[in-house]
This record gives sequence, structure tokens and C-alpha cells, in this order.
Amino acid sequence: MPIDFQTSPERYRHWRLTFDGPVATLAMDVDETAGLFPGYELKLNSYDLGVDIELYDATQRLRFEHPEVKVVLLRSAKERVFCAGANIRMLSKATHAHKVNFCKFTNETRNSIEAAGAESGQAYVCAVNGTAAGGGYELALAADHIVLVDDGTASVSLPEVPLLAVLPGTGGLTRVVDKRKVRRDLADVFCTLEEGMRGAKAVKWRLVDETVPNTKLEARLAEIAADFAARSDRPDSGPGVALTPLAREAGEGFVRYPHLTIDLDRAGRTATITLQAPEDTAPADAVAATAQGAAFWPLALARALDDAILHLRANEPELGVLIVKSQGALDRVLAHDEFLRVHAGHWFIREVIGYWKRTLKRLDVTSRTIIALAEPGSCFAGFLAEPMFAADRDLMFVGQRDGDNRPEAKLLLTESNFGLLPMPNGISRLETRFLGEPETLEAARSMIGEELDGEAAEEAGLVTFAHDDIDWDDEVRIMIEERASFSPDSLTGLEANLRFAGPETMETKIFGRLSAWQNWIFQRPNAAGEAGALKKYGTGARPDYDQERV
Amino acid sequence: MPIDFQTSPERYRHWRLTFDGPVATLAMDVDETAGLFPGYELKLNSYDLGVDIELYDATQRLRFEHPEVKVVLLRSAKERVFCAGANIRMLSKATHAHKVNFCKFTNETRNSIEAAGAESGQAYVCAVNGTAAGGGYELALAADHIVLVDDGTASVSLPEVPLLAVLPGTGGLTRVVDKRKVRRDLADVFCTLEEGMRGAKAVKWRLVDETVPNTKLEARLAEIAADFAARSDRPDSGPGVALTPLAREAGEGFVRYPHLTIDLDRAGRTATITLQAPEDTAPADAVAATAQGAAFWPLALARALDDAILHLRANEPELGVLIVKSQGALDRVLAHDEFLRVHAGHWFIREVIGYWKRTLKRLDVTSRTIIALAEPGSCFAGFLAEPMFAADRDLMFVGQRDGDNRPEAKLLLTESNFGLLPMPNGISRLETRFLGEPETLEAARSMIGEELDGEAAEEAGLVTFAHDDIDWDDEVRIMIEERASFSPDSLTGLEANLRFAGPETMETKIFGRLSAWQNWIFQRPNAAGEAGALKKYGTGARPDYDQERV
Repeated sequence: MPIDFQTSPERYRHWRLTFDGPVATLAMDVDETAGLFPGYELKLNSYDLGVDIELYDATQRLRFEHPEVKVVLLRSAKERVFCAGANIRMLSKATHAHKVNFCKFTNETRNSIEAAGAESGQAYVCAVNGTAAGGGYELALAADHIVLVDDGTASVSLPEVPLLAVLPGTGGLTRVVDKRKVRRDLADVFCTLEEGMRGAKAVKWRLVDETVPNTKLEARLAEIAADFAARSDRPDSGPGVALTPLAREAGEGFVRYPHLTIDLDRAGRTATITLQAPEDTAPADAVAATAQGAAFWPLALARALDDAILHLRANEPELGVLIVKSQGALDRVLAHDEFLRVHAGHWFIREVIGYWKRTLKRLDVTSRTIIALAEPGSCFAGFLAEPMFAADRDLMFVGQRDGDNRPEAKLLLTESNFGLLPMPNGISRLETRFLGEPETLEAARSMIGEELDGEAAEEAGLVTFAHDDIDWDDEVRIMIEERASFSPDSLTGLEANLRFAGPETMETKIFGRLSAWQNWIFQRPNAAGEAGALKKYGTGARPDYDQERV
Repeated sequence: MPIDFQTSPERYRHWRLTFDGPVATLAMDVDETAGLFPGYELKLNSYDLGVDIELYDATQRLRFEHPEVKVVLLRSAKERVFCAGANIRMLSKATHAHKVNFCKFTNETRNSIEAAGAESGQAYVCAVNGTAAGGGYELALAADHIVLVDDGTASVSLPEVPLLAVLPGTGGLTRVVDKRKVRRDLADVFCTLEEGMRGAKAVKWRLVDETVPNTKLEARLAEIAADFAARSDRPDSGPGVALTPLAREAGEGFVRYPHLTIDLDRAGRTATITLQAPEDTAPADAVAATAQGAAFWPLALARALDDAILHLRANEPELGVLIVKSQGALDRVLAHDEFLRVHAGHWFIREVIGYWKRTLKRLDVTSRTIIALAEPGSCFAGFLAEPMFAADRDLMFVGQRDGDNRPEAKLLLTESNFGLLPMPNGISRLETRFLGEPETLEAARSMIGEELDGEAAEEAGLVTFAHDDIDWDDEVRIMIEERASFSPDSLTGLEANLRFAGPETMETKIFGRLSAWQNWIFQRPNAAGEAGALKKYGTGARPDYDQERV
């Protein structure tokens, strides 16, 4: 059974979403019998991928369906337990690939929560009413403000090292020292304390923002929510945009969405994602776009691309090369691209842009080789050209194909390619591309609006290679066959290192450094072996560690 | 047989060092029969740890013994081969821990080469006369300028991914995109080309700085060397400071140097490094310090600490906790600390400071728990307090010990703690420590020159905990026993993530990100398994990869 990343509130098993004007409450209430796989119980609000799929869905709906929500209270519906973190029995049974993919997705969801406060005027306030352990505290760390109940038992902790011989790998270590800026020696103490920290000391050590007695919790939360709401620039009322069910059709060798097709080639180990241009030009104004709702092409395409990436990551691990193509009318893509920039101040359009930003980042951190192919009839322009610049290599067809009357491929840059959609490293894909050649970046900027053919794009450094009809098929075939012959692991490491030159951010630290160490530790017998801590946890037996330091 | 990191030119098997006024030539001429371990031949200037130990020794002697050397020509003494990189058979036989330690040391040596050009006025110019593959090109990448012979065969390449299923892990990927700023898609192409790149294209892709025909190589090198020499601020003549053999004595449970002792506790799995204050006050001036030569206390202590760290890393992998103590007269430490800052403009004193900078960074990236203990009679002051701030935790004794008349521990900050000795992240250890509290950093600065007792130091955030005679022994014992009970792997990951908050540099990217991915890959069956690429290399058989992408 493939893992499906689509859900909706009426199907939630683990979360309760309620609304009170500008304040929504997102309450964790994990159904311990409803794990994604058999063999474990999700006790004490512990989570697996299924719980996080619902959380991601909730954050998306809060953005799009509830423009009036300015503050989200993130809390637990269970007494004396906030969240016990990722479920250990699930982790101990999962394959290495599942563990790594699970952590990547949960990391992305936490980054998305942070982006809501930073970019969408929708702050998350976390109320820790009991134990927030490991991934539970990491979830709290993603919030803009953490309130810890001061009842002598509620605590935050990162007990992964002492209990499980792994890392707090969902951003925990990075957020403790880089976001909350806890002193490194205190962080070291905290991360080795099984029982974690309570009360005033947790505030003093910068682990939470404040503590309140249980009796004053609701009043204080209302106060904080009102404060955040007053600073929000979201509208006071709707209408929102309903995220209607994705029209998705899957068959042998394909998955089809209204504006996107995935073609699967299991023998060649590739998946081809074709992005389709809209059938119409841009709406008249933001109100008209809002009325289109989930059918508004940039939103519909972002949703399809998001789902496609997640589907391929989780369900097609052996398809090592993602080929990205586009097809359709360049002018309609351009009309929508301009529309997004012109109306970026409108809450809905801002959300659509933010969704593209996050979806493109999801592509950036996807551990598959990405190859963009601009062929006749393609429409890589403006924001739709970003997947080309996210690719490890981008190739462009020169001229037309023999016997095919589709127009020659043209690449068209717009202002959208110069900062609207930054990578995880905080700068645009083109700025990263031309780090060593600021003059080439400036030259590219001066080409905004020009239709560049393959030769011009290659000359400008915007594509890796340009080939004509004589060479194209062979060059592409050989490149992809060669790629498929390499070790998938070394490609993952290569791509993770080459994609993010230049500045570092908390996001690049989480995906590049913290996750790499966690991946290493997930392979070590001390953690994942038969006598390792993940397997021994809960059995009463102590793991027996190989004491060699590496 | 323990690995010894001490050597000297007359014992070199792999390098030839010659001098011509301001230009030294460091020629690689690996003796294929002289591997550090049996079982492999160091063909085609391939290297193992033994080759790199000599290279490190040479770079140190070039700095200290040859003040007049302004340019180092790094080249090969073999025809048509520059360097084939790390020896594959060695890698395929080595333990995981040895591979990781080997890469760490070679990375540190390449960083040291870069620091020579950036900070010591001693530039490295690399002449690539033939194949520079993998670690061979990575060595070239550390130079300030790379000249590639244009003879149709000399090439640079990073064939690790296609040939060996591992990464160019000695800084190669990072230096290609972050130092040389090669465009990421071209870097991707380059890193998958077994045969690498030659001639003008290698210049165009920014992989090397220039190409010259073989016939003009010597003339061009002389020209480049003269250019770099003209820009150097090193003196035109000596005298240098001879790095005389370290007076080192090892016995059961200890290693002793003139100003440093290591006490080994194998049962408790700790090594205690005690740094000793000088017996005399500082010399009168820089000339007098130069006359003291290798006996100049800050230099002697840096050499001992450097050797101690390397010894413990390579030869005592099960001693997971390094305890750092100091002992001796605070005023003499302070006199030397001030001396270093006052005379920092003198070439020799600049070298001593640079050596401390690099040695402290070596401590920062050492994968052992570091605990500093300031006990009665200790002398943590100025630069000698930096190992305390490099520690994962630092503890200070309040008052005197019962029955021990040594003076109460005092911590003394000087200007040296505020930028003279930056961490790999480019900022001081105190700035990193107080990232979240700039006001605490300023408060610490205002305490320069004050003798802080344990309580004052704890209050100022400079130590983790202060304890008196009643609690000290128990607190320390419990802390260390607890540490020793955790998984060594999870501690390595924890420390690597908590130590380097704040800004990132090429060095933190290499040690934090690139090395973490390489460590992961070194554990993967596709690389290191019986059917993996490292084992199959050279057998004619193709490795059979598990195609799952993680």
C-alpha cells in the first residue's frame, strides 16, 4: 500500500482543529490504535508519519482556508502529556530509508510552521502542559512562543542521546543552539538529561519563553494570542480558499493530476514530471483568483508538485532520477507569473507564493538526481523556471524536432527568478548558481523578458548544455543511464553537498549537517543493531555499546 | 604499534623539500613500499596517513624554520603523475574509525596549507604536471593558485562517485563550489567524469587558475612565485626556529611532555590532559623569544597539545572523555599571553599564535567529550583559558581543597579571548557561547584582567557549574561516569552539532556537513560492503548496488 500524503480534517485520527475568530487551536490527540503500519501503539501522543501527514495538512488548511486565523495554539488534548516524540517501536522496526524520509518530512513540516509565523502572519504559540520529550519538544521548538506549565511535572527534554543512542534529529539540536541560542555547555547538559527541565530553570536556560501555573494558563494564552494577533497583517475575515481533494489518477506507470503528469520508468529507474501550463490567462484580480480557489493554476500546480515529490520519495525509492519537463503556452505562464508578483500583497497570493517557495525547497532537499529538460513546446518561464535551476543539470533543446511542429524551447527569466523564491540557503537559485560570477548574475538580470533559445541560455550559463535534434536523444539517454549506474548513496551525498554553496541558514544546517549525522548514527550498530539502543528500549535490558569513538 | 605523528625531513620517505631563497619546493615522491601498514602499495603518488604526517610536518617546518620562505611550490617529483589521491586498497582495508580519523587529519592539514597563505604570508602554488585525481586534486585545491600543464594528458578529477561510490571527502566538494565557486551544475558534471578535465576547459570551469605548456612551466612558476613573494610580509632572512624533537616520554598510563601530561584511565575511559604554566616569565622581546626557539613556552605547549590530541585520536579510540586541567603560576601565563599580543606583528610570534589557533581548532573538531576542570592551583588565563571554552562543559572549584594549600582556582580573561583565536566558525569561542546574549559577552569583556573565582565565573556564564570541596569529587565523578555510559556515536553527533552555532565557514562545512555525509557513506554496503565499490575496485568486477535512494 503506497503512503498517501492527502488527507482532510474530517478524516483526522490524531488532531483536533477548532476555531475562535482569529485564534485556532490545533490539539494533538493521537489515537494510539491508528498507526500507519501495524506493530506499534502510538502511546502518550507519540507520532509516526501518519500523525505528521495530518499535521502538515492542518498547517496548509490553516493558511489557505482560514485567512482570518492569525494565531494557532498548538497544544495537547491529553492530560499531563504534550507529546512523547517519534514512536520508538516504529523507529526500531522501520527501514533506514523510511527513518530518513520520515525525519525529512517532519523537518519540512516544522520549517513550514516557522514560515507561517515569519511570512504569513500566522504565529504558532505552543502550550506545553506536560511531558514534551524528544520530537515532542522539537515540535514545540518550531513555534514562535513556548509556554510551559509550571506544575512541578510539565517538562521539556531531548532524551535521545541517553535513552536511544540517536540524535534529536528533527531540528532539535540546531534549534536549541541556533534559534533559541542556548549556551552550548548548557545545551550539552540539557541534551543528556533524561528527565529534561522544568519551570523557571527552563526559562533561564532559554529552553522555553515563559512558565505559568496551570490555573492561569488559559488566561495567559489568550493574552499572548491577542498580542500576536494584533501584530498580524492577515485579513480579519474570509473568504478562504478550500483545499478541495486533489484530482489524482494513478495507473501502471503513471500518476496524473490536472496540470502535472508523472511517468514512471522502473526499468530505467527514472520518473518524469511534466508541468503543464494553464489553459487560460491570469485572472483579472486577486478577488477573481480567490474565486478560482484551488483551481487557480499556480496553486493547483503547487499542490500537484508537492504531492508528486512526496509520493516519489515515499513510494518509489528506486527511481533515482527525477526528470522535470514543462509543456504549454509560455505567454499564459508569464501572465500568471506577473500576476503573482503584482498581487503579492494580497493574503491569498502571498500564500500561493509561499507554497511555491516551500515546494521548491522540498525539491532542493530531495535525495534524487534532478535533471531538467527544456524541449520543444516547453514553458520554463518565471517561477516555473525555478525547477530548472533546482536541477542538478539542466539541458535545453536547440531548434525543433524533426516531424514535430511544437515551437522551439525558450527560457524566459522574470523578476521572480531573482529573490522571490529563495533556496534553503536564503538566496535565489540563480545567485547560488553564479556565486563565483556576480557579473554573470547581473547579465542574467539584464535578460529579463527576453526569449532565450538553447544556445543563448547555454551562453548565459543558465543551462548546462544545449543540444540539437541530432544529438539530443543520445546525450540525454547516455547521461541518464550513466547516472543510474552510480551508487545511490554517493549521489545523495554528492548532491547534498553541491546544491547549497554560499550562505548557511538554520534550514541548511538541519538538512545538511544535523540530518547527515543522524543518518550516520541510524546506521550504527550502537543505535540500530540487534543489541543497539533502539531495539533494547523498553525491554529493561541495557544496550551494550562498542566504545570506540569515531 | 601506536601511530606517531612526529617526524622530520631527514626521515621523510615521501616528500622532498628544497629551498631557493624565498621559494621552497615541496615535491611529492611517494615511496610505494613505505606504507604505514602492510598490505598495499602506494602507487602513482597515492597516499596514506603516513604520507600526510610528513606533509603536515613539512608545512610546520616551512612556517617556523624558514621565515624567509614566502612561496611554496607544491608539485610532484614523478613524471606525468601529480597525485592519485588516497590509496584505495588502504581505504578498503581500513576500519571505519581509521578512515574517519585519516580524513579528519588530511582535512586539517589542507586547512593549515590554506592558513599559511591567508595568515602567514606563505602562499602555496600548485603545479599539476599530470593526473591529479581525487585526493590529489583536493590537495591542489588547498593551494592559493593552481597551474595545470597543458600537454593533452594532465588533468584534474574527482572520480570518487563514479569509481568508488564514496565522496571526495577531503574538502573536495566544498572547495569546488564554495572556494573556487564552480557553477553547481558544472560541478555535478565534473564530479561524475572519471577522466576529469584538461586544459582550457578546466580553466573556463574555474577548476584551475591557468594552464601552461610544459615547455613554459618553469618560467611561469618562477613568475607566479615572484608575484606572491612580492606580496608577502614575511622577513627576507632568518634566523628561523628549529622544531627540535619533542621530548616525550610514554609509560603505562601516561604520556609526558615538558609542559603537558596525559594521564590515561582505561577503566574509566578518560584521558586527562594537564597543561602546565611556564617556569619563567615572558622573554624581554621577540628576538629573545626567537632565541628560546622551540623552548619558548607557548610554542612548546602548542606542540605538545597538538601531538597529544593526535595521539589520543589515533591510538586511544576508547577513551571517550578528554579532561583538560591546568596547573601553575597564573602570572607567568598572563605575562606570556600579553607578550603574544604585544609582539603579534613579529613573524615568529604570529606563527606561535597561528599554531595555537589551529591546535585549538583541532580540539574543537575532536570527536571526544571535552570537560575542563579548573581546580585549585590551576592557571586558566588568556589564551590558556581557550581550552575551557572549547570544552563541552567547564567546571570550576570554589575555595581550596581540604589539606591542600594550592591557591583557589581563578579564571582570568584577557583580550586574547575576544577574537585572537577564532573557532572554525570564524568567531571567538566566547562569542559563540553567548550568541543569544550579546550583553553577557560585553559583560565578560568588561571583566578583562579580573581574577574570577568559581562563583563569579559561574555567575558570568563562563563556566557551566561551580562546586566546593564538599561536592566537587562526587559531581565530577558522576558526570564522567554518566558520559561514559552513553553511546559514543550519539555523543559524536551531539557534540558536532552543539559546538558550532552561529556563522558557517568553509571549515565548518567541511567538518560538519561534508564529513558527516562521507561518514554515512563509509558505513553503507554500496561503498564499504563485501560487494561494495571500495572492495571491488581494481578487481575488474562491477559492484552491485542496492538501488534504494535514502
